[in-house]
Parts: sequence; structure tokens; C-alpha cells
Amino acid sequence: MSKFLSTEAGRLDPYTPGEQPQDQQYIKLNTNESPFPPSPKAVEAVRGMEAEKLYLYSDPLCTVLNNALAERYGLKPENVISGNGSDEILGFAFRAFCGTGRGVAYPDITYGFYQAQTALFGLDATIVPLRKDFTLNIADYMDFPGTVVIANPNAPTGMMVPQAEIQRLLEKDPERLVIVDEAYVDFGGESCVPLIPKFGNLLVVQTMSKSRSLAGGRVGYAFGSAELIADLNRVKYSFNPYNVNRLSLAAGAAAVEDEAYFQSCCAAVRENRAWTVQALEDFGFTVLPSCANFVFAKSGAVPGGELYRRLKEAGILVRWFDKDRIRDYLRITIGSREQMEALMETLKKLLRK
Amino acid sequence: MSKFLSTEAGRLDPYTPGEQPQDQQYIKLNTNESPFPPSPKAVEAVRGMEAEKLYLYSDPLCTVLNNALAERYGLKPENVISGNGSDEILGFAFRAFCGTGRGVAYPDITYGFYQAQTALFGLDATIVPLRKDFTLNIADYMDFPGTVVIANPNAPTGMMVPQAEIQRLLEKDPERLVIVDEAYVDFGGESCVPLIPKFGNLLVVQTMSKSRSLAGGRVGYAFGSAELIADLNRVKYSFNPYNVNRLSLAAGAAAVEDEAYFQSCCAAVRENRAWTVQALEDFGFTVLPSCANFVFAKSGAVPGGELYRRLKEAGILVRWFDKDRIRDYLRITIGSREQMEALMETLKKLLRK
Repeated sequence: MSKFLSTEAGRLDPYTPGEQPQDQQYIKLNTNESPFPPSPKAVEAVRGMEAEKLYLYSDPLCTVLNNALAERYGLKPENVISGNGSDEILGFAFRAFCGTGRGVAYPDITYGFYQAQTALFGLDATIVPLRKDFTLNIADYMDFPGTVVIANPNAPTGMMVPQAEIQRLLEKDPERLVIVDEAYVDFGGESCVPLIPKFGNLLVVQTMSKSRSLAGGRVGYAFGSAELIADLNRVKYSFNPYNVNRLSLAAGAAAVEDEAYFQSCCAAVRENRAWTVQALEDFGFTVLPSCANFVFAKSGAVPGGELYRRLKEAGILVRWFDKDRIRDYLRITIGSREQMEALMETLKKLLRK
Repeated sequence: MSKFLSTEAGRLDPYTPGEQPQDQQYIKLNTNESPFPPSPKAVEAVRGMEAEKLYLYSDPLCTVLNNALAERYGLKPENVISGNGSDEILGFAFRAFCGTGRGVAYPDITYGFYQAQTALFGLDATIVPLRKDFTLNIADYMDFPGTVVIANPNAPTGMMVPQAEIQRLLEKDPERLVIVDEAYVDFGGESCVPLIPKFGNLLVVQTMSKSRSLAGGRVGYAFGSAELIADLNRVKYSFNPYNVNRLSLAAGAAAVEDEAYFQSCCAAVRENRAWTVQALEDFGFTVLPSCANFVFAKSGAVPGGELYRRLKEAGILVRWFDKDRIRDYLRITIGSREQMEALMETLKKLLRK
């Protein structure tokens, strides 16, 4: 680091994203991307007239995209904010709703980006351990006075909290905000979006990176009361008023409108997940019950880090976290059936050695 | 604001971007966009194969774009960071290089976003008045111990500080970082990029929103020592590791490589600026000496706010800042010759009333 680095930035322990080799020589099951291309309508939108309009700023209100999202989810446009990926939206939310006198609580095993946000804004974080079986005990959060952040389904476990339990948390204290990060909800979780009209203390964050095949387009969004969304926009206008570019606005709106394609992709992922879970279990793996587009599994025979490295050498990238409690596990994205078959073949070769 | 808003976010007085009507019914001279479409090569890049790869995350290292920028500006890739517009890069820089014990200084009349960043991170800001004629007196900064931020050319004045003066500031104190925001440099300023290899305390921020016609693509970047860039990346990985989407990476790289188109656009803007300055002066306006793709001008006869409103009613959007010292001025983007002729015709009609 340079001698100019601020004390605050020096404290950061930045989130490490999964490897992104650009040469496509790996079967890439490490960052929970969709194995399917974006909706043909999204591709068409990108290749349309927007490209020639790039000399003009994008709409800071993200009107086209927010309207499409509001329509799809039965809300009003003032209940929606869009961002440059849901990471940006989470950043806005951590700044808007946590700070002096209002700490934040989240599980010990969850999306690593929350920890990065906590460091970025110097927040007072309460880390709440998941149970031994990696389930989240909602009772642990009932009396927490600050903002609660729950990834549901959780990452990297893939396990979900029933909507009814989140509702109990919302009801317990209307003065406390609950942020539910539903990045993976479309693969089998129970969404809290239907609770938005009833609860002013609920913010739901989603992304198009997984179920809508737009990871490289960077489109995230959140739903909440008009007041919460106005707060987020206040922060957005300080960070980056034109946060979503023209092409991503067009691609995102088109993707949301192509419901049939979305449903077929989600169904295919669920089917491949069922196949993969069965195959891994048949082969002796322990697999946590996943509602996401990945599974979290351990072989029992080979340590997680070792298996991660062997798979990488064999051309398959998965994600391994060198962290207490989960060091034995691998997070494996659910890809196409061919990719999952290749994974199983490779595992069988590697583990027979 | 909601009851959940943090103390810190409550203090924000967000930057207000210029109006972005989406219906194109105005002659839009209010946000310093290019009047020219992007390079045909950038359009081609967007319409190519990247659209179908949007299901995969973008390269967090921005390799293609950083390499193109390094090549064009005679630097190494490790001297470059790219972002979702230069606003994002400025945000990274304010967080990386200002904080506890290290304040920030910038002029009273400059890009409003610096003030937003200061509020966002709770920084100790020293606001240094420009001289009465809106020139920047470099001596005012010589003994400032924190980070100095200079927009050069400045906005909204369009006036520039000679490179030699910035060099004096860099030489005076190698322990002090100087951030030069060169959003408008391609239209006639003196760039500090050639000083990068010599000065470890210099960060230069640029954008493709103006001279490369990619405002709606959101592509900004910065040049500095490898250490400074590593610091910025440290912050980036906490904010948004995949900050630039695939399409903008491709469009940006293609735009940088199309040097001939870039030069012709910049030359046309300079020519239209000369024409506009002459026309405004002939019509009795006072026009500050501009090195940017806009002019800052006052009529003398009609207050700035009044003239802004009359122009808007007549279908021409310009920018007016309701702020001490500059309330009489309008910031007028240099558009195409036809747009500038329309502006002059309209002004003549309005001011003859």
C-alpha cells in the first residue's frame, strides 16, 4: 500500500471475488453464474439502437428498468431502485441504514461482501453464528436493535429461512430494518417480496446475475417502501448518479419482461441441482439442502482445499473458502447437465486415485 | 427520509445531476455530453459477441480496457484503474486517500461531486476560494497538508491551470497527494498524464463521457503509480469487484483504439467552441476563457436563473447553478454547429423581447 492510503481504507479486508479466467479453458462452477445465455430479448435489446445513443448519459432514474421490475413484481416504481449489480445496492443500503448508533447483524457464515461493507463504513457489526447444522435461528436476531442482514437462501450454504420466520422478525420490532438479500431466491427459496406492501421495515435485494443470466451486465435492484427507496436514492446520488449504463438498463428491462425464458432457466437449474445432489450423495458426499443455483458439499475423504486444487488441475473451477467451520466444503455452481456430468466423472477419477 | 436513515446518510447533500429528459424534445446543452455518436468501432464492439456472454461476470481486472488505456497513454497496465464512470473512480479515490488525519482541499467553485464525496465519507474539507476572476491560485495549496483535488480544466468555469503549476505543487511536498480530475482535458487543457512516471504523489482521473462519446456507457479511469492504483483496487474490491460491465469494457477499449475518430471529435468541439464564444461575445455576453467542451457565460442583461428558464421554455436546456459568485452565469455545453446556431438564434429572440 502507498503512504497515501487512509486509515479507513487501510482497515479494509476486501471481498475476494471468485476467479474469472478470461480464456474459458475451465468448466466454471465457481461464481454461481447461469449456464444459459441471457434471454434472446436482452441480447436483441443490447444490439438495438441504444449503442448509438451512448454519447448521452443514461437515465439516472432508471425508469425503463424500474418500471419493468415494478410491473413484474406487482409493486410501484417508487418501491424500486436499480444498481450496478446488487453489490452496489448492498453498498447503498449499508451506508443508508447503518452507522453511528445503529449497528448491523449477520451470520458468521454468509456472503463475504457484508464484512467488506462493514469495514468500508466502519460499522459496528454483530456476527451471529449459524447453528451447528448451518440453519439460521431467527430467535438469535429477535432482540437485536440494529439493522439485520439475511441472505436467503444463504451463501455459501444454499439453505433457506422460511418466509414466515422473517415475517416474525419483521413483526417483532417495526423500528428495526431487515434487509433480505435474495440473490438466489429464484431457484427455490421463499421470497419476501410479497411482504413489501405490509412492512415498512423490510428491504429486499435481488440480482439479475444468476436467474436472469446477466452477471456480466451488472444489474441489481431492491424493493422496499417508498421512504426506504428514497433513502437509497439519496445515497446513490452521492456515490454515482448515473449508476446504471444505457445498455444494462435496456438488457435488464428486456430480461425481466421475458418471463417464459426466466422460468425455463430456473426450472433447468433446479432439475440439474436435483441430479447433482443425488450423484454427489451416491458418491458419498455430504450435501447441504440447497435452494440456490449451487450446492455446498464435502467429500469426507479429501480436505476441501485439496479437492479444490485437484479439480482446478483437472480443468474444473469450484469455490473453496479457507474459513473455520466450512473448510471441508466446496461450493459448486449448478451448471448445465453436461457440465455436472463432467464434474462427476472428474470427481470419480480424482477420488479413485 | 425514513426513520431508518443513518446519521451519516442524513448529512448527505447529494450531488444533483443535470436534467436528463428521455424524450429528446430539447436541444440538450446541459450535461457536457458529446454531440457526436460513439466511435463506430465502439458501436460495433457492443453489437458483437459480448452480448451473448453476459451470463458470465465481467473481468474484475478490466484487462482489455486497462491494456488499451495503458497503450494509448504510454503507461503500464498497473498504472491504470477503470471504473463505472469517473464518478466511481473519484469515490474510490476519496475513500482511499482521505480520512482520519488527512483532509481534502478543493476550490469553492468546482465539480459539485467533491462536496458529495466529502459528506459521504465524513471528511474534513478545506474549501479554497478561486480568485475573483475564477483563476486558481496554486500558491493557496502549497502548504496544505492533506489531499488536493483539482479539476483541470475546472468545471463549471472551463478554465485551466498550466501543467507547470501542478508540477510545482507536486514538487513542493512529495508526501502530499494531488488528484487532478481531467474530465475535460481533451478539449484544450494541459494534461498531467506525462508527469505520472515522475511523481508518485499524482493521480490523474479521466472519463470517456465527454471526448469519447460514451457518457451512457459509464467508463472512467485513472492513472497513477502502481502503489496508488493498488490502493484504489483495494477500495474497489470492497465497493464493487465487478464494477465495469462486459459491454462497457468492450466499448471503452474500442473507443480508445479509434484515435482518429477521437481527434476529429475533439477538433470539431474546439472549432464549435471558438465559433460560440465569438457569437456570444458579439452579442454582449461575458465568456470565461474555456478549455473544455462547454462555456461559462453571463448575459449581463438578464439574471442567470431567468435566462435558464426562458431557454428551457424555448426548448434549450443549459445548466444554471443557484450558488454565490456564479448565479449570473450559465454553463452551456458545446454541441454541434447546428445546435449552437439554434442557441444563438433563440438567445437573440429571447433577449430582444
